[in-house]
Amino acid sequence: MRLRNKPWAKPLIDGNPDLIVTNPNEYRGKWETRFKRSAPLFIEVGMGKGGFIIELARLHPENNYIGIEIQTTVAAIVLKKQIEIKLPNLQLICANGSGLSEYFEENEIDGIFLNFSDPWPKKRQEKRRLTYRTFLKQYQNVMSDEGTIEFKTDNRGLFEYSLKSMNNYGMNFEQVFLDLHKNEEAMLDNVMTEYEEKFSKKGQPIYKIVANFQKLEQV
Amino acid sequence: MRLRNKPWAKPLIDGNPDLIVTNPNEYRGKWETRFKRSAPLFIEVGMGKGGFIIELARLHPENNYIGIEIQTTVAAIVLKKQIEIKLPNLQLICANGSGLSEYFEENEIDGIFLNFSDPWPKKRQEKRRLTYRTFLKQYQNVMSDEGTIEFKTDNRGLFEYSLKSMNNYGMNFEQVFLDLHKNEEAMLDNVMTEYEEKFSKKGQPIYKIVANFQKLEQV
Repeated sequence: MRLRNKPWAKPLIDGNPDLIVTNPNEYRGKWETRFKRSAPLFIEVGMGKGGFIIELARLHPENNYIGIEIQTTVAAIVLKKQIEIKLPNLQLICANGSGLSEYFEENEIDGIFLNFSDPWPKKRQEKRRLTYRTFLKQYQNVMSDEGTIEFKTDNRGLFEYSLKSMNNYGMNFEQVFLDLHKNEEAMLDNVMTEYEEKFSKKGQPIYKIVANFQKLEQV
Repeated sequence: MRLRNKPWAKPLIDGNPDLIVTNPNEYRGKWETRFKRSAPLFIEVGMGKGGFIIELARLHPENNYIGIEIQTTVAAIVLKKQIEIKLPNLQLICANGSGLSEYFEENEIDGIFLNFSDPWPKKRQEKRRLTYRTFLKQYQNVMSDEGTIEFKTDNRGLFEYSLKSMNNYGMNFEQVFLDLHKNEEAMLDNVMTEYEEKFSKKGQPIYKIVANFQKLEQV
């Protein structure tokens, strides 16, 4: 999502350094210190308006969560909500998702969520897609061996691309859904983003994959 | 597809040993001898009424094709057509697709087509699906290293399963289509089965994957 910059966004972020970070490099290997208690750490790259990560943090007090968003105004919208509800297990980062390896130490993260990220449909934009191999490499770097990527999108082209990219990289597919909302079992613990609610109501299929970096064993 | 056995089927097959084989083991490593000329060899496992393999053989006289079908009556329907048109680059096998390694030598085949095969949706039927790992193992055995599996289906559950199964086996995805008929480029050389024509007209998405067994290289 793209939003015009609001003048209140930057000051709000600067005024709440306990809830949101703009210098994530400084917390590399020390994210635990920003939470009330140590717990498995999950991140969402491109959190948008934050509906997903906030709901997840609410549902799972046993985990810690970090939402990452590059756009100042969008991140500030999530921050506004967090100022209200002050979830102790949620931290925010306003920075570029392409810097993950600088923000997190090896194995510091236990799982990564990618939701409805920009499809960047043109061939020359391939490197910007969050499932391009340089991004996958970073996820692999910062995530523990048992960790999974959970990726959802309504964009057919991006999902086709991502299946190939993740497969070609050597990732191991745990779950694949080509119409998530028609799968009752998968919907039991599905947390929806704002975007997902809107588009699934129109009857468009939502695609989802859960995959890990564990070494594939040839049968 | 399932058809009731017709009394004329078996005699027709027995009467045309130059066009159809019921003892494929005997031609293992010698399939070339059954064609007018030596050429790359492609097979379809579960050819149904044969619309796909016949059209492919027509379009590509530079290749040899073998259609395999387990059901006598269904195979005999294809045989009837072949008796009319006598394509020199098409041979038929009436036998169980699970015996591929007994019918073909290592590397004897250059590519395999699987079209709209039975989804066997129940968990206990998993081993019968043509993309179950024991089938993949056989495809790998009989196919050259450069060969590809081209798999099409309109069954979402089977395609989700197949993406996982082929990925977990270590196959390398070349192309993935989640709504084949909406992709103009892919449709240029798409050959439709009878089933595909019928179901795509109803607006149901057709899924397709092209994948090979070449060793994946970690980036």
